[in-house]
Amino acid sequence: MKELVFGHKSPDTDAVVAAKAFSYLQNQLGYDTEAVALGELNDETKFVLQHFEEPAPRIISAAKPEVDAVMLVDHNEAQQSVADLKDVQITHVVDHHRIANFETAAPLYYHAEPLGCTSTILFKLFKQNEVTVPAKLAGLMLSAIISDTLLFKSPTTTPEDEAAVKALAEIADVDYQKYGLEMLKAGTNLASKTEQELITADAKSFEMGGKTVRINQVNTVDLNEVFAREAKLRTAIEAENKAQGYDLFLLMVTNILDSNTRLLVVGEPQDVVEKAFNTKLVDNKADLPGVVSRKKQVVPPLQAAF
Amino acid sequence: MKELVFGHKSPDTDAVVAAKAFSYLQNQLGYDTEAVALGELNDETKFVLQHFEEPAPRIISAAKPEVDAVMLVDHNEAQQSVADLKDVQITHVVDHHRIANFETAAPLYYHAEPLGCTSTILFKLFKQNEVTVPAKLAGLMLSAIISDTLLFKSPTTTPEDEAAVKALAEIADVDYQKYGLEMLKAGTNLASKTEQELITADAKSFEMGGKTVRINQVNTVDLNEVFAREAKLRTAIEAENKAQGYDLFLLMVTNILDSNTRLLVVGEPQDVVEKAFNTKLVDNKADLPGVVSRKKQVVPPLQAAF
Repeated sequence: MKELVFGHKSPDTDAVVAAKAFSYLQNQLGYDTEAVALGELNDETKFVLQHFEEPAPRIISAAKPEVDAVMLVDHNEAQQSVADLKDVQITHVVDHHRIANFETAAPLYYHAEPLGCTSTILFKLFKQNEVTVPAKLAGLMLSAIISDTLLFKSPTTTPEDEAAVKALAEIADVDYQKYGLEMLKAGTNLASKTEQELITADAKSFEMGGKTVRINQVNTVDLNEVFAREAKLRTAIEAENKAQGYDLFLLMVTNILDSNTRLLVVGEPQDVVEKAFNTKLVDNKADLPGVVSRKKQVVPPLQAAF
Repeated sequence: MKELVFGHKSPDTDAVVAAKAFSYLQNQLGYDTEAVALGELNDETKFVLQHFEEPAPRIISAAKPEVDAVMLVDHNEAQQSVADLKDVQITHVVDHHRIANFETAAPLYYHAEPLGCTSTILFKLFKQNEVTVPAKLAGLMLSAIISDTLLFKSPTTTPEDEAAVKALAEIADVDYQKYGLEMLKAGTNLASKTEQELITADAKSFEMGGKTVRINQVNTVDLNEVFAREAKLRTAIEAENKAQGYDLFLLMVTNILDSNTRLLVVGEPQDVVEKAFNTKLVDNKADLPGVVSRKKQVVPPLQAAF
């Protein structure tokens, strides 16, 4: 019986690649799966797929019309997943995030590790199952790891992520340093984007203390270029909060060259944000030096502060 | 930094053994852990530890006074875990149950598979990490698998469980068929138990449709011996429901020789139980032929009916 495999909404490179990698692995092990995506691909992911001549996945908005069971990668929280998740059985999850707002009626396969990238975990699962990673898939997987770890600059990076990139680079025959920087820059082409795109591209929702918190992160090589559009960004976020019912919106603008983030905070409660990061918001903004990881440096302190 | 490793409240053989096995494995991998238990051991588990001359684990009622972080085995739902679970970090989970009422603030190691026993999963993790299972631990682990699968009669049994028992029996030098039946019978010595013991020994709580559902299972070789005490069991359950705030209590009395269960149901809603098992309760009781597994044959249909 066919199953769909997918990563989170607002897919990033790992969400797309991990779905392809896990689907490939499971098919080798005898399952019948198809990797799909829950939304339009971002510029970085498009660059990656083009570079390795890999077709883009089909985009779905509901699972139940097609299948009875699904496999999740790179996420588990229901609000980050397909809209009708509760109508299908989840048989497998491979992830590297915290677990929250996730529930099943029956036992399942669930494998999570606190590593920098789902694709690193998948590389280990290929080895455990003695399945060879094809060269093209190796290129995609090392791209996902470089994307999630910002070329090993993120504090989420583990020695296993670095080792996986090096091993995959040999299989794919790629100069990962040179290619990795090109790839990251391809994802920072912000000038061509609308404000709406900038606030939704990689956005995720979290339930914290009864509030719906929306957090988006955009990578850049020039903070000033982004904040020149601050007034319009703010207006777009206010409209988005109202339309979607978000209580609090954090826009993380991260400089990938020096690994610092400037935060733009719209909605309430603002004091919880100040408490979480031990800072004062000035004009709804705060600089967070050394912060590049939503998962490791933003969500946990915010959750604790709530 | 030391961590505690433990299975669920009302510990059964797998809860105790899996904690010992995972603690041993993690210590081999460089962690500093101690296996503990969340309550008194049952007769079967005492028989197992005595047989393999293994000391009983220390019993704890709170984790935070001793450690900042814990590892869970054989469970994940908060109501089945240590009372102060929310005050400590969960760094690892190894389990074979559904996931529910489980949440973390940070990423973690979580490995679950839909196999018959946590100890089967652990046996695989020993192999993956190239850690040898000592003979005594092999005896404990095969006992846990035989306990959870009722010597392979439970529908939760997978080929991996059987293969693990056979491999562990070679390491431990045990005739697992003969030993397994002895062990299961040691766990059915119900005559010496009070009604209170019979309704709490292996009990677990579940949140379903806003109700707190308590389910206990006792194994026997003679249903009539148990139901001769029905009136007293019913009184004990009514008192327990009132004292603990349970809405609905299901006592599964399972004949391990012919693999049938008789259900005694106290509390409300009774019609949901009838719907779940497509049966009529007569005098609060129903026979469920072929039902031996709470996890696979009772919780999922009940959850669905709610």
